Amino acid sequence: MDGVARWEPNTRRRLVVAALDLFAEQGYDATTVSEIAERAGGLSKMTFFRHFRDKREVLFAGQEVMGQLLADAIAAAPETATPLQAVAAGLAALAALHGNEQRAFAVRLRAVIVGNAELLERAAFKRYALTEAATAALAKRGVPEPAAGLAAELGIRAYYRGYEQWADEPADATETLADVTRRSLDELQAATATLS
Amino acid sequence: MDGVARWEPNTRRRLVVAALDLFAEQGYDATTVSEIAERAGGLSKMTFFRHFRDKREVLFAGQEVMGQLLADAIAAAPETATPLQAVAAGLAALAALHGNEQRAFAVRLRAVIVGNAELLERAAFKRYALTEAATAALAKRGVPEPAAGLAAELGIRAYYRGYEQWADEPADATETLADVTRRSLDELQAATATLS
Repeated sequence: MDGVARWEPNTRRRLVVAALDLFAEQGYDATTVSEIAERAGGLSKMTFFRHFRDKREVLFAGQEVMGQLLADAIAAAPETATPLQAVAAGLAALAALHGNEQRAFAVRLRAVIVGNAELLERAAFKRYALTEAATAALAKRGVPEPAAGLAAELGIRAYYRGYEQWADEPADATETLADVTRRSLDELQAATATLS
Repeated sequence: MDGVARWEPNTRRRLVVAALDLFAEQGYDATTVSEIAERAGGLSKMTFFRHFRDKREVLFAGQEVMGQLLADAIAAAPETATPLQAVAAGLAALAALHGNEQRAFAVRLRAVIVGNAELLERAAFKRYALTEAATAALAKRGVPEPAAGLAAELGIRAYYRGYEQWADEPADATETLADVTRRSLDELQAATATLS
């Protein structure tokens, strides 16, 4: 990463940070697109709408990229990989999106989402969409139903559970999101034997 | 059920049927609360709002009742029941809400939801909320994490999968939603052994 990229994060990222700041300070409902654009460095509404459909999508814009990364990594897993091994490869690809310096951001994002019914719904849909993306990728590998959907759901549960645990770790913890997610998947896999 | 209840469904039910009719005929976005109330037998908007917060909630009003039924049945399962046996009791309680005469309604409801992004989001949240309700009920029984969340998610997946299969059966099929859901849970349970 060169100096410019480090110190002048791109417009999209600036808009995301500005939106989260404002949502946390004054509430999601009370925040307008104009305010977000202004806070992001005197940008215009027009610039905002070149990047995001509305203020809600600022917080969920990663969904399509995540779904594609997940599907691609599942597809690229070795032919001999079991369904859960393929899912694990997908989770590793997702986890690589978040460095430990983003932990504080994750905690603030969660606080904003939990406080708003509309955002909770949108978050549930994102989770559902990621599960569907993983299911489709497993089906393409020849995993039949209901195993494909089940492996996908178990994997996405492991990812969200791992993400929560990672976000709650102290600021100086060195464990990565990939580490925590992998352990979470192992724990969930072990738990399947305790259900019946 | 007496004659009046059979032939004069209550206001709430009439509003649900009217809403689904209009959503299917002219689209969800194009339909107003006034139109729904009128179609339900010349009712007023005020009557509508005594029953539902907005036109979207007409389709999801069952969520709280379903979550409570699910939780109560899980709580009432025998002390010796395994997590999945307790979940199965919860699913049986949910399945009892739908008689086979409601199959056509289920198919039309699905078509309306699938065609609208806002409704898909709301549906994902309902599914998430039911999973959370089952998880909490299992935790109260002493099932630890991550087994509680996993058993709940497996159960809700079985319910939704069973519901889809049930809705697609021919009109004269005699198998009940409870039958199909139970089989779906058995299949998912068997599939857990094929994932690793």
